[in-house]
Amino acid sequence: MKIYDDYLNTIKSAISADRKFRSKISTFEAYDKTLKKAFSYADLNKSIPQMQLLPSFNDLADEIGLKPNFDQKLGLHPDFAHLKGTDKTEFNYIVSVFIDIKGSTNLFSKYDPETVLIINTTIQRAAIHTCLVFGGYIHRLQGDGLFVYFGGKNIEPKTAALRALQSTSMFTYFVKNDLKNLFLEQDIDKIFTRIGIDLGKNKDVIWSMAGIGEISEVTTCSLHTSLASKMQGSAESNGIVLGDNVKSNTDLQFQELMQPVSKRTGNESDRYIFRIPSEKFFYTQYDLDWLNFLKLQSFILTDLTGEVKLKRKNVIPPDRKIENLRPVAAQNKPYLNGSNK
Amino acid sequence: MKIYDDYLNTIKSAISADRKFRSKISTFEAYDKTLKKAFSYADLNKSIPQMQLLPSFNDLADEIGLKPNFDQKLGLHPDFAHLKGTDKTEFNYIVSVFIDIKGSTNLFSKYDPETVLIINTTIQRAAIHTCLVFGGYIHRLQGDGLFVYFGGKNIEPKTAALRALQSTSMFTYFVKNDLKNLFLEQDIDKIFTRIGIDLGKNKDVIWSMAGIGEISEVTTCSLHTSLASKMQGSAESNGIVLGDNVKSNTDLQFQELMQPVSKRTGNESDRYIFRIPSEKFFYTQYDLDWLNFLKLQSFILTDLTGEVKLKRKNVIPPDRKIENLRPVAAQNKPYLNGSNK
Repeated sequence: MKIYDDYLNTIKSAISADRKFRSKISTFEAYDKTLKKAFSYADLNKSIPQMQLLPSFNDLADEIGLKPNFDQKLGLHPDFAHLKGTDKTEFNYIVSVFIDIKGSTNLFSKYDPETVLIINTTIQRAAIHTCLVFGGYIHRLQGDGLFVYFGGKNIEPKTAALRALQSTSMFTYFVKNDLKNLFLEQDIDKIFTRIGIDLGKNKDVIWSMAGIGEISEVTTCSLHTSLASKMQGSAESNGIVLGDNVKSNTDLQFQELMQPVSKRTGNESDRYIFRIPSEKFFYTQYDLDWLNFLKLQSFILTDLTGEVKLKRKNVIPPDRKIENLRPVAAQNKPYLNGSNK
Repeated sequence: MKIYDDYLNTIKSAISADRKFRSKISTFEAYDKTLKKAFSYADLNKSIPQMQLLPSFNDLADEIGLKPNFDQKLGLHPDFAHLKGTDKTEFNYIVSVFIDIKGSTNLFSKYDPETVLIINTTIQRAAIHTCLVFGGYIHRLQGDGLFVYFGGKNIEPKTAALRALQSTSMFTYFVKNDLKNLFLEQDIDKIFTRIGIDLGKNKDVIWSMAGIGEISEVTTCSLHTSLASKMQGSAESNGIVLGDNVKSNTDLQFQELMQPVSKRTGNESDRYIFRIPSEKFFYTQYDLDWLNFLKLQSFILTDLTGEVKLKRKNVIPPDRKIENLRPVAAQNKPYLNGSNK
């Protein structure tokens, strides 16, 4: 998707500058500091700014009508931050999303650690930005993954569930299509995602501080947070698996795009992710047909070749050199030009 | 091990007070607020203080000669905190330790979420305290687990590796013996750990900020951090798996207690956790015989029944009621009595 071009180009630049990859010299010599470093972590920060959305992402945020909150802190959901440092607990529903990026360890066999750093950081930043645009709260960075909450005190569970599905479908599309092609060119074992999503209802989610002192986070203790993490493990490559509470909180047209995991695996024991027979509690996990889900979203259109695009016509070209910005850019509040705000 | 008795007693108290477990009533009724809550999160904080070691742990800290640093912050190793908010990267060795506590999701089938919270928090706190006593730095809380670094700028890699092995062996002993017995009594599927440990050398570990703004942590990008996480997955129940760099940084007497994972599994392909054939790089993963490793430590003795204990004779009884403290307590700086410092 064009919206991710800047992320992709950053990774391409880092790869083409990689000394190990270029020179095929031994690992030790690869660290010879006399070799010019062509793409550094500082370059990454120029290419993908941390605290601003790239123009294409800004457009998406406008379209969705949300203002991303860059002032978040890890492990401190704004609606429950008051629990930090206290003995208190609070019950409140939440959608828990675990995004895992698999296969990145193999990057070390081909590239310098510095290049792996750029690749991982860029992918992670794409995930963070995507979730922020959809109103997600980034709770935890987990190396090659993320743990994100959707929802809180002033958002309906249905809205939170929808946004969780939208952002993870967008990000999966990026990894499955854009990233995959790049790594195929590079003869790298594929990088793929596995995503697990579940919704815990008000009475089933306890918020409290975990850990001690500042070695702590405000977090949820809930069967459904645990199950979201487990469902990540149930997902196929580039798959999204969600729990029954998510399904029942989405529109009927989307529910048709969810089918029990057991249908894919052919193994009936994969239908339920959790069972308490004595309570007659059987909790189903579903695969999401995220591509068709994405195509049904108001901000997405599918072109004649079947490629998925943002619907808005005025998408700013990803090349951010000022001379290349089309005239339309001025109408779209690009971050390079604040005078039109 | 007696040193963990307070943690175990806390879990016992929470279980015996659990409404769902006591009453066997339906999940919904279990949340009836008119039922007296007998053990709360606040009770936990009284029973296992966050920022102080229990007397028995204080003794261990004295014995090892380290002063636990309670002023840590997640995601901000003190030796690399200056990288936060910068474009800078830095190379420095580190020992990465992933501790996963498995099986806790099943607790939800038997207990109220509040009881699960107490159980999980207590186990996590036992892990945090154990690592702190051995000079570990708690980098990340991961729900049912921890990601801990050992080492830094002023510690030798050999020392860091030794402390990583000591603390994880202690914690595994607690889970494998003390916790197991408790959950067996309760007819709960067992709770167990899986631990992965690896050491990345100076040239192989990049420190930098991951994420954006305050949605960030100072973390390592290294093959060996990734492998430590993977080795956690290679470990058997209550097993500790470590990488070749850890083995080669430990004393010969301990190396004898490490054998390739392939010996256990009988599958030669489990010998190496990572291969780069073109560079003739084959990296071996080892099971640690942690019980015998523990028995070789200077602070441990084994009694006639084979039980492992702290060697110091003056261990304070775990019952912290003042009237029960033995006279010897005064000599050991218990935290209930600061007048002897």
